Amino acid sequence: MDRERMRCIQLKDKIVSAEEAAKWVKDGMTVGASGFTPAGYPKAVPLALAKRAQNGEEIGITLITGASVGDELDGALTRAGVIKRRFPYQTNDDIRNAINSGKVQYADMHLSHVPQWIKYGFFGKIDLAIIEAVAITEEGAIVPSTSIGNSNVLVEEAEAVIVEINTSQPLALEGIHDIYSPANPPHRLPIPILKPDDRIGTPYIPCNPEKIKAVVFTDISDKTRAVSEIDEDSKSISKHIISFLQSEMKADRLPSGLLPLQSGVGSVANAILGGLCDSNLCNLQIYSEVLQDSVLDLIDAGKVNFASATSLTISPERLGDFYKSFEKYRDKIVLRPQEISNHPEVIRRLGVIAMNTAIEIDIYGNVNSTQVNGTRMMNGIGGSGDFARNAYLTIFTTVSTAKKGTLSSIVPFVKHVDHTEHDVQIVVTEQGLADLRGLSPLERAESIIENCSHPDFREGLKQYLQESLQQSKYLHTPHLLHKVFEE
Amino acid sequence: MDRERMRCIQLKDKIVSAEEAAKWVKDGMTVGASGFTPAGYPKAVPLALAKRAQNGEEIGITLITGASVGDELDGALTRAGVIKRRFPYQTNDDIRNAINSGKVQYADMHLSHVPQWIKYGFFGKIDLAIIEAVAITEEGAIVPSTSIGNSNVLVEEAEAVIVEINTSQPLALEGIHDIYSPANPPHRLPIPILKPDDRIGTPYIPCNPEKIKAVVFTDISDKTRAVSEIDEDSKSISKHIISFLQSEMKADRLPSGLLPLQSGVGSVANAILGGLCDSNLCNLQIYSEVLQDSVLDLIDAGKVNFASATSLTISPERLGDFYKSFEKYRDKIVLRPQEISNHPEVIRRLGVIAMNTAIEIDIYGNVNSTQVNGTRMMNGIGGSGDFARNAYLTIFTTVSTAKKGTLSSIVPFVKHVDHTEHDVQIVVTEQGLADLRGLSPLERAESIIENCSHPDFREGLKQYLQESLQQSKYLHTPHLLHKVFEE
Repeated sequence: MDRERMRCIQLKDKIVSAEEAAKWVKDGMTVGASGFTPAGYPKAVPLALAKRAQNGEEIGITLITGASVGDELDGALTRAGVIKRRFPYQTNDDIRNAINSGKVQYADMHLSHVPQWIKYGFFGKIDLAIIEAVAITEEGAIVPSTSIGNSNVLVEEAEAVIVEINTSQPLALEGIHDIYSPANPPHRLPIPILKPDDRIGTPYIPCNPEKIKAVVFTDISDKTRAVSEIDEDSKSISKHIISFLQSEMKADRLPSGLLPLQSGVGSVANAILGGLCDSNLCNLQIYSEVLQDSVLDLIDAGKVNFASATSLTISPERLGDFYKSFEKYRDKIVLRPQEISNHPEVIRRLGVIAMNTAIEIDIYGNVNSTQVNGTRMMNGIGGSGDFARNAYLTIFTTVSTAKKGTLSSIVPFVKHVDHTEHDVQIVVTEQGLADLRGLSPLERAESIIENCSHPDFREGLKQYLQESLQQSKYLHTPHLLHKVFEE
Repeated sequence: MDRERMRCIQLKDKIVSAEEAAKWVKDGMTVGASGFTPAGYPKAVPLALAKRAQNGEEIGITLITGASVGDELDGALTRAGVIKRRFPYQTNDDIRNAINSGKVQYADMHLSHVPQWIKYGFFGKIDLAIIEAVAITEEGAIVPSTSIGNSNVLVEEAEAVIVEINTSQPLALEGIHDIYSPANPPHRLPIPILKPDDRIGTPYIPCNPEKIKAVVFTDISDKTRAVSEIDEDSKSISKHIISFLQSEMKADRLPSGLLPLQSGVGSVANAILGGLCDSNLCNLQIYSEVLQDSVLDLIDAGKVNFASATSLTISPERLGDFYKSFEKYRDKIVLRPQEISNHPEVIRRLGVIAMNTAIEIDIYGNVNSTQVNGTRMMNGIGGSGDFARNAYLTIFTTVSTAKKGTLSSIVPFVKHVDHTEHDVQIVVTEQGLADLRGLSPLERAESIIENCSHPDFREGLKQYLQESLQQSKYLHTPHLLHKVFEE
């Protein structure tokens, strides 16, 4: 027994193998797991569970996590046919294929809705929570690893808890977490966060040790995703955004030091935030759901003073270094439950500037961020809606073309709507930026086509708008709907 | 001078005719006005302004109100060609026609976004605010009438203010208002409302009297809309909702006395709420944006203890009686700025149960609440998104058919999306109720078709879903998009 990591004497008899722990999972259960954007998810127990199914046992579960998790959980369990129903987000190839072929029932949810649904009982009983930790305290409280997500809520609500103590996750992470769980209505109080670095809770997840049925040690590391090299398109998008933010500062619509920034997940989002390194902006703060590599760069460059999120998803090539120099970042980072990182109350109060990516955007400003061609699920809406709807400024970005330039990402009518025209203020592509604030739909269409569409598709879009104006009976949002989805 | 209503000695020289006051409006101005769901909007000054334009003067303005206003403002000014740009909501026939014929540039906004856009400077400078009041206090503060909407924010931000003291609005209204204006980020504090009846501000709109350039007396009454007789369809919808809420209570997912209720505007919404009178539910509270006739019935019936909103829009046939027996309601009603009545922070904290109406709903749960056929603007999204996204439970209702039964309101793909599948939990028609919580898109489609569609259209919808399943490559949200908008 590792006494540094397993400090609760009462639980020492609960230390078992992953195989032993996995026996707690029964067919038909609703299982909650830690994990958010491949960070801090359980690995050993899911692998052991997958093996049971591969060996012929009939076992199907509903899986609820914070957000996306690594292959050991979503991949292995999907390949073994264990996941029947999945909430609220995923990025793994195998589960994505299973969803798109109808084998896994998937509901794509706003990430801020998930913790309250768990607490309100909307998912039914949570049979089991499997939580990755760096340690268990003397009192049985759980110290999470690289993400919090819904872990604290799952521990609160689940009948039984399994803890995976992951020794590949440094114990130095202890102290960066801030756990706070609002009461259910009608007893809920204001969430007392006034700035990104406010601490309002405990550095551990409180847990009655009686609830902990098994403790497993493992050293399998987070399978975070690599971030691509920053390409020219991302650089252009980043430049357009920075120049826009600077003009907003000049117009006194933003304070110097801006307001807390949020940026979506992935290489483009990482690149856009990274572009701030080359700007003259400083004293920045982050209030987001994930911290990617670029945030470390921004802290290193002295641009960012503080960053709040629910997940630390550092690329594999960077992770070792990050852990080595962790003390440099310790007092500049806090991880919170996703109920808090994504809470409308806090996002609106702080005046977050939200930057999220789209698959396609239509000329009136509606955004598809989840389904290619309207039917092929990519990942999910994630927290983009939580931030976009409640932000001080809401920015959506996309490269203006897809499929090697053969398709326009600016379209007459998006094939799936995740963010409505009411929720989108600024649209940016590598071509330019359209500030839609205060514009009527027709003016929005003109601005998006002119500023954001690729020259190869601009005339076609103009023609669609022109024909719609000529042939529509109603001119507020003119459309030729019978044409928009023509094959 | 009416000393009871005009108590500020410093302002007595500012009392002028409506014609004189209207001269403050110049071509090109951005004008803010009080008014929310035809209640509490200025009447005399707009009529005088319309006359100037009718007499040949070139004058065009941008008009920002709380929500919809009566014919004296939206109608008269539209007919006179004065309104060039309009935010954020309307219900008047003339302005609707002008919007749909492209003569007025209209941006349809979430009502909670409007006050912060005014404060953030996103609309540019507000040149003038025209506010209906029941009185001006000794210090020059403004006591609003039947609505607050954005009035307090407009008074804060406008360069100049005109007050219309309306003597048809009883002075007895003084005291029911609670004005609170959050600071802009990064200085914003939690909004300290913990229950619907909490008072957190002042019963008047603070105003530097120097800002008030003109005071006009008028006695033109609110042109509120009549509510239709409660029909069988509304009764059925109401019954389905009440039975659902009762089953949620039984399942311990709702406390007895429920949680605060919100209901949209109009006859159907009024009828749905009214149905609670015949239920065994009691100790109810309302946290909504408008209070219609049915709320008075519910208070009379002892069902509702307290109601909070930003507007009192009582039907013409009921208004006289309401004013006569106002003392009965005084301590059971509060009116707040729409920044507070519609604030995500408060709605989510209180756990509001949101009930809003739709034009059409698609089989996957996306809602069109604004545009008939995707291009003809009806009213606007209003506050439905503020409530739907942040509610404890989100319910959308529609009668299952439109145009005398010739069209289904349940469709394969809505022609305009105002509320996405991520924001819609419960769908109700007179046919029945579909509880979509935790369902995958495919399961949602089956449930909506089975429970909510009209029998005349049910087979057709089933066939669409079946064909989509057979012909789609991807089965998470199967669609035959080339068919959905066929003419």
